[in-house]
Amino acid sequence: MTLIQEHSETDTRERILVVAERLFRQIGYQKTTVADIAKELRMSPANVYRFFDSKKSIHEGVARGLMVEVEIEAQRIARSEGPAAPRLRQLMTTINRMNTERYVGDSKLHEMVEVAMQEDWDVCVAHMECIAAIIGEVIAQGAASGEFEAPDLLLASLCACTAMMRFFHPQMIAQCATKPGPTIDQMIDFVIAGLSPRVRAN
Amino acid sequence: MTLIQEHSETDTRERILVVAERLFRQIGYQKTTVADIAKELRMSPANVYRFFDSKKSIHEGVARGLMVEVEIEAQRIARSEGPAAPRLRQLMTTINRMNTERYVGDSKLHEMVEVAMQEDWDVCVAHMECIAAIIGEVIAQGAASGEFEAPDLLLASLCACTAMMRFFHPQMIAQCATKPGPTIDQMIDFVIAGLSPRVRAN
Repeated sequence: MTLIQEHSETDTRERILVVAERLFRQIGYQKTTVADIAKELRMSPANVYRFFDSKKSIHEGVARGLMVEVEIEAQRIARSEGPAAPRLRQLMTTINRMNTERYVGDSKLHEMVEVAMQEDWDVCVAHMECIAAIIGEVIAQGAASGEFEAPDLLLASLCACTAMMRFFHPQMIAQCATKPGPTIDQMIDFVIAGLSPRVRAN
Repeated sequence: MTLIQEHSETDTRERILVVAERLFRQIGYQKTTVADIAKELRMSPANVYRFFDSKKSIHEGVARGLMVEVEIEAQRIARSEGPAAPRLRQLMTTINRMNTERYVGDSKLHEMVEVAMQEDWDVCVAHMECIAAIIGEVIAQGAASGEFEAPDLLLASLCACTAMMRFFHPQMIAQCATKPGPTIDQMIDFVIAGLSPRVRAN
C-alpha cells in the first residue's frame, strides 16, 4: 500500500466519524443508520462497512473521539507548571466543563452517552482509568512537593475521582444539576482537604 | 369519624401499599395496574382510588416506605454512643448495604427506582436531604469532640454525601459494581480524612 493510499484510508475513516457525530447530534444515535451516514458521504454502505464492521463500532469511534479531547486537555493541564492544588482544581473544573458541554446540554448526544454506558463499557472504563491516571499525576506532584499526603497514589486518585462523580459522570451531571448539593469548588476544597497532610493522632 | 374507622382507614392504606410493593417486586412497576392491586385485595379499583388518586401516588407511598426504613436505621446509628468516626463509618456502610439490598439485587425494584428518579423527584430529594441531615448530626458530634474539623456543618455533610455517591445512589451502585474504584471502606477513609483536623499552612 502506498503512503497516499494509507493517508486516504485514514482520511475516509475520519470523515465517516465526523459525519456520524454530526448525524448523532442532529437526529440522534438510535435513529441514525449506517445507510444515512453512507448517503451523506456519497458512498455505499458497503464501503462504510470496510472501515467499521457495525454501527456500534462507529459509535465507539465517535465516543472515543469525544473522550480523547478531554484526555488531551487534562494531560496538558497536568503537565503545566505551578503548585499541585490549584492545578488539580483547574483539571477537575475542566473535566466537568468539557463533559457538561459534550453530554449534557445536547440531549441527542446525551442519548449517545446512555448507549455508550450500556454497550461500550470498555471504552468508558478505559477513559475513566485514563482520567484517574492523569489526576494521579497531579496528586503525585503534590505528594512530592509536600502539598499532599498520599501514601497510596493509585488509591488517592481513585478516591478523588469517585468523590467527584457528581461533576464528572455525564448522567450524574445531568441528574444533579437542579438538586441540592455543594458547588464544584466546594467539592474540590473537600477533596483537597482529604489529600492534605493531617495532624497525627498519637 | 370514630377511632375504629380511622384505624381501619390507615390499615387499608397500609394494605394497599404492602400489596403494591409485592406486585411491583413480582411483575414490575410498569406492568402492575391499579386493577391488579385492587383484585389482590378483593376490593374495587374505585376503593383503591379513594386512598390514592393515581398509580403514581401508590408508587410514591411504596418508595417512601422503603426510604423511611433506611432513614430510621440511619437515625438509630447516628444517635448511638461512641466516637464519631467509627459511627460515621457504620452509618455509611449501612446506607450502602440497605440501598444495595433494596434496589440493586432486585431488578424489578430497580425499575421502580428508575421511575422514582424520573417522576417522584420530590420524594427522592426529601430522602437525600434527610440522609444528609443525619450524616450532618454525626459530623456535628465529631466537630464538638474535636475528631472532625467542620466550620460549615451543612456543607460538610453535603460534601460527605456527594463523595459517597458511588455507594449511596442506587443507579451508581448498580453501574459501578464491576468497575474499577475504591472499596467502600477506602472511600470512607478518604471522607474521614477530608473531615479531620488539618495541619495549618502558615
